[in-house]
Amino acid sequence: SVNTGNTKLMDLLDEPVPGVGTYEDFNTIDWVREKSKDRDRHREITSKSKLSTPALLESISDAFSGWLLMLLIGLWSGALAGGIDILAHWLTDLKEGLCLSGFWYDHEHCCWGSNETTFQERDKCPEWQSWAELLGGSSVGASAYIVDYLMFIIWALLFAFLAVILVRAFAPYACGSGIPEIKTILSGFIIRGYLGKWTLIIKTVTLVLAVSSGLSLGKEGPLVHVACCCANILCHLFTKYRKNEAKRREKYAAAGVSYYFPLKTLWRSFFAALVAAFTLRSINPFGNSRLVLFYVEFHTPWHMVELVPFVLLGIFGGLWGAIFIRANIAWCRRRKNTCLGRYPVLEVLVVTGATALLSFPNSYTRMSGSELISELFNDCSLLDSSQLCGYITYSNTIPDRPAGPDVYTALWQLALALVFKMLITVVTFGMKVPSGLFIPSMAVGAIAGRLLGVGMEQLALNHHDSAIFKSWCSPGADCITPGLYAMVGAAACLGGVTRMTISLVVIMFELTGGLEYIVPLMAATMTSKWVADAFGREGIYEAHIRLNGYPFLEPKEEYGSKALAQDVMRPRRSDPPLAVLTQEGMSVGEVEAMVADTDYSGFPVVVCQESQRLVGFILRRDLVISLGACNARQRQEGVVSASLVFFTDHVPAQPTSGPPAVKLRGILDLSPFTVTDHTPMEITVDIFRKLGLRQSLVTHNGRLLGIITKKDVLKHMAQMANRDPDSILFN
Amino acid sequence: SVNTGNTKLMDLLDEPVPGVGTYEDFNTIDWVREKSKDRDRHREITSKSKLSTPALLESISDAFSGWLLMLLIGLWSGALAGGIDILAHWLTDLKEGLCLSGFWYDHEHCCWGSNETTFQERDKCPEWQSWAELLGGSSVGASAYIVDYLMFIIWALLFAFLAVILVRAFAPYACGSGIPEIKTILSGFIIRGYLGKWTLIIKTVTLVLAVSSGLSLGKEGPLVHVACCCANILCHLFTKYRKNEAKRREKYAAAGVSYYFPLKTLWRSFFAALVAAFTLRSINPFGNSRLVLFYVEFHTPWHMVELVPFVLLGIFGGLWGAIFIRANIAWCRRRKNTCLGRYPVLEVLVVTGATALLSFPNSYTRMSGSELISELFNDCSLLDSSQLCGYITYSNTIPDRPAGPDVYTALWQLALALVFKMLITVVTFGMKVPSGLFIPSMAVGAIAGRLLGVGMEQLALNHHDSAIFKSWCSPGADCITPGLYAMVGAAACLGGVTRMTISLVVIMFELTGGLEYIVPLMAATMTSKWVADAFGREGIYEAHIRLNGYPFLEPKEEYGSKALAQDVMRPRRSDPPLAVLTQEGMSVGEVEAMVADTDYSGFPVVVCQESQRLVGFILRRDLVISLGACNARQRQEGVVSASLVFFTDHVPAQPTSGPPAVKLRGILDLSPFTVTDHTPMEITVDIFRKLGLRQSLVTHNGRLLGIITKKDVLKHMAQMANRDPDSILFN
Repeated sequence: SVNTGNTKLMDLLDEPVPGVGTYEDFNTIDWVREKSKDRDRHREITSKSKLSTPALLESISDAFSGWLLMLLIGLWSGALAGGIDILAHWLTDLKEGLCLSGFWYDHEHCCWGSNETTFQERDKCPEWQSWAELLGGSSVGASAYIVDYLMFIIWALLFAFLAVILVRAFAPYACGSGIPEIKTILSGFIIRGYLGKWTLIIKTVTLVLAVSSGLSLGKEGPLVHVACCCANILCHLFTKYRKNEAKRREKYAAAGVSYYFPLKTLWRSFFAALVAAFTLRSINPFGNSRLVLFYVEFHTPWHMVELVPFVLLGIFGGLWGAIFIRANIAWCRRRKNTCLGRYPVLEVLVVTGATALLSFPNSYTRMSGSELISELFNDCSLLDSSQLCGYITYSNTIPDRPAGPDVYTALWQLALALVFKMLITVVTFGMKVPSGLFIPSMAVGAIAGRLLGVGMEQLALNHHDSAIFKSWCSPGADCITPGLYAMVGAAACLGGVTRMTISLVVIMFELTGGLEYIVPLMAATMTSKWVADAFGREGIYEAHIRLNGYPFLEPKEEYGSKALAQDVMRPRRSDPPLAVLTQEGMSVGEVEAMVADTDYSGFPVVVCQESQRLVGFILRRDLVISLGACNARQRQEGVVSASLVFFTDHVPAQPTSGPPAVKLRGILDLSPFTVTDHTPMEITVDIFRKLGLRQSLVTHNGRLLGIITKKDVLKHMAQMANRDPDSILFN
Repeated sequence: SVNTGNTKLMDLLDEPVPGVGTYEDFNTIDWVREKSKDRDRHREITSKSKLSTPALLESISDAFSGWLLMLLIGLWSGALAGGIDILAHWLTDLKEGLCLSGFWYDHEHCCWGSNETTFQERDKCPEWQSWAELLGGSSVGASAYIVDYLMFIIWALLFAFLAVILVRAFAPYACGSGIPEIKTILSGFIIRGYLGKWTLIIKTVTLVLAVSSGLSLGKEGPLVHVACCCANILCHLFTKYRKNEAKRREKYAAAGVSYYFPLKTLWRSFFAALVAAFTLRSINPFGNSRLVLFYVEFHTPWHMVELVPFVLLGIFGGLWGAIFIRANIAWCRRRKNTCLGRYPVLEVLVVTGATALLSFPNSYTRMSGSELISELFNDCSLLDSSQLCGYITYSNTIPDRPAGPDVYTALWQLALALVFKMLITVVTFGMKVPSGLFIPSMAVGAIAGRLLGVGMEQLALNHHDSAIFKSWCSPGADCITPGLYAMVGAAACLGGVTRMTISLVVIMFELTGGLEYIVPLMAATMTSKWVADAFGREGIYEAHIRLNGYPFLEPKEEYGSKALAQDVMRPRRSDPPLAVLTQEGMSVGEVEAMVADTDYSGFPVVVCQESQRLVGFILRRDLVISLGACNARQRQEGVVSASLVFFTDHVPAQPTSGPPAVKLRGILDLSPFTVTDHTPMEITVDIFRKLGLRQSLVTHNGRLLGIITKKDVLKHMAQMANRDPDSILFN
């Protein structure tokens, strides 16, 4: 009877139940578990590969799938980035006019093909007709101006309307920059569909529309989101990545931002960047066969004295960053909590209309953000026809350059553009269209920098003999480069808003290719970070993560509490005791009742209720799925509510008369993390961060006392920082 | 009686015993404990700062001490680096001759001051006299050559002899590159004196001598060691760093290599680099007022087809790296195990003599490594007078450049130099003088690259019409840059030897300032890494760490074992049971006996022997010091061997008649790390790596089973990789 009894055992260890080991939406993954799963898979393939040739081939293809995947991601996201750039250029120019030699040409390419273009006025050619010329026949006069103005606003509204409607109808996740969500996803959070094919399609299309509409937004952030979508979709082609949340996240990180992943990932992301760069180069969207967006080359070196204005730009960048974050978060909170949030389409249309209305009259706001930055970064050579370079030149031999009336006009326009950009960006970032922050922040900084740069230049010109300039700036010498000031200002503002520092300087290299200016850039970004940190330590992305209540454990946030694990763990003193399973003796019915009565994500398993000695941990989802599978598939074989559940290694013999036992050791995590009740919370927080834990059990002298989840940690940290602990929304 | 008994309690909690919390030499620190200590210190200062103005000032100075320290480190190490460079230049030139207008000028500066120098022959001037001219009066003829040759060898031997004698007499730790040891120290190992003032002084002096002696070695690695010594010495000025091993290591990392430390450190190391760069710039050792060592500027862009030779250079670099590591480790092992190791001075003299003898006749080996690399990296312009640029020029308008006899001579000399450098570097690295590897590795790669580059150039010249070159290399065009090949080859060889990849590409930027060549550099370094990894995954520094048996847990080493914690922990099945203390009931004598009988570094404390429920962990050193202090200071107050030792929070009342109890809870670690016996070793290894643990206790169902130390983990990993587990020497 004993022997036959043993066969009546539902062992779930051998046949994995589908769904065990997966996660629910808006939950955090367990990094340690995912990594172990991947190692098991790897080991299995390696051991099999010694047995047969097909298995060996499979193991080789498995090893190379990572590289193949990166190649594909690089190709795809590079091609998308190039396509978006070309389309956005065309649509932006469409707001101003049309090319007669082919409507698919943008302004620049239209005039490239023209024979009548002179070198001096490269952007004027008869083939390119403004809307006033097309509709009214004339390009001069007040009525032509009004026609152009109206068409500019109409196109902008049309693009913005299409963008917001598409986002609302097909992919609500496509709005915003996506960086806060991707940071959270990379840290292990699950948001289903956030990196899906619909998000990809809609984000690509609406990004083009949003950029073209002339709104004060950039495309760098959304491009990271697009690259991560590509990575996610391509991951589904490979079993290795489809089935493992941690491995997949490595690819997202490689595709988008390099985060806290192993060295190999960094290396592969470099490879993806290389492929993307190649693809971009063959598409050549910047039209200068260089891989950098704003290629700068200044001919005058900078002087130590100039560090003073650079530090001033840093202070400006830091103040602007702090103010922008406060204002933008306040506005977004208002959108969330008041009736404003109920009319997103109207909001987008109003902001677009206002942007178009105010930006058309000023040439520096009418041009796109990247064109503006490019113009501000540029050094004035004698040939340059830009208004900003309208210096009075006495002769070609002496480069002494007092500012002419053109420069003063340009300065006034830039000052107005600065105020306008600062105000409009606050309400633009966070609307329901794809929107990045890099270009607007850099534009603000570049304008401020250029203004200061021209000011310094004229100061030096008029005070050659003063003590400050005497030693390094002789009369007739061109000793100050306003373009460099623009670059430094752009870095300072970007630093103030995002609080990136080293990565920012690297990004500035990537964008501009200038390596000689490491010291000015560093001086400005350091000052900017210090100043901004004095007003609040969060960057804009962290602020939005917090606004949305995502469970993100900031890696750098300092934590100074003296609390111990026992102060944070649940159950608290007044709570009912912890819901635990015992390793033997509970029936299926009792387990099901405990699952139904509680909403915990998992249950510790102990030796017995009296000793509370910890055996392992079982996830609610795995338990529900396993018992469900038991019930559905095997009810006929006799598993009833009275069947006993065993988590032990050896199941004692069951009487033949009774129902068969259910053995669940296979889904039990035998190596749960534990900390003692006296462990300081700062160490516990460190462990959660570094190991990517989802929960840790708390013991005292070997007895189970309670549990700390990531959410508990986040709530505790919110409380310590005097924030509302209930702002943490998800598990 | 009960109340008076309670006062008879030796409580060590309130008055910290000096020495508790420090470490012995050749031991590993506990990162978690060090970090907690610093957090406690920080919290104490912060809470005090609210009470009084002096405390507030102290807290502010404490906050800024990190930045001040970085400033000082940057200034000091930058000045030292500049000084070393200038001195080494002078001594190197001293081997060839002397400046008559002032013996303190090197060759270049001597001729700068001369009026008779033409632009064509900048390095020839009457003020600079070779030894033959000084001693024999003539600079031509066989006898003059022999005099110069002999003086060259004599100076080289003198410098090398001084270097090795100084190292042996005053600071044995000053030899080698120091990078393996610094990597180990950064990971938490203690080597007293390794970063001390004697090491600093002797390493600085002997580095100059070793570089000047003409040995095939570089100064970049030793400069990292010098910077870390500066950091260590300056750390002693600040209490914050003097008393905390972990905080001090952050500074070493910032000063030397950026390793695995928090973001703030990275930022500060950037700051230190900035200050060092400023200092260097004011000293201006490279004489070109640029911050980069080899400034390159090529005028021809590279073509996709050229990726084939770049990948070939990568393969060469990988093969050379793998062969070099094997050969060098075999040679170092032989030095360690045979009588060769007993005559280090003789070894250095023989190698120096051989180097000087063989390198003098060939101009490419006679010049210093950095001069060689600089020459190989250079693009040939029409003005260039170097032998390598001896192309036949038909006219100034057509830059078609068939190689002339000078170029062929140069190629032969370079080929011989390649073989010589490859052989001599193997026996040089690891000798008892300061020696870096960057310059020799780069030199080997640069020679190979230049050879291939010139070959490609002539191939393209003679086969304009072939299918490969037709599309991009028209007749008369200068389409291949041999200097770029040299740069790519240098990166490939450096990558093969050190296995750095991304950081390597960044270093190449820093050294050369060329950002346009990211793709060729990446293609070559990636290939080189792949090829070299196929022969063995260790870089030269990891190989030396292993050779010396340092306890270094490689962060990237992959680990594929299925072992569980219970298979690795001690005690093993056949061993005697684990030595544990009980939280109450043991006498001072029993504790002292247990400490004397065992040599473990620490002891777990359990509730009682029967239950084996874990309370905490106590370090042997702390226990010995505390009991020693008890005995020495307080024996008169009645602590005897029969006194009871308590680790509990509340000590039961002692009878007045008996000896007083000793309470040791203050030195007990109440939050020891535990893993269960079923935890896979790969997870355990991950925890050790990420948290920087020294040991972890192993439990089963809440009972203490055993202990795993870092040494156990390293031994187990050595076993898995089929290496000798006894090669791990230290704790």
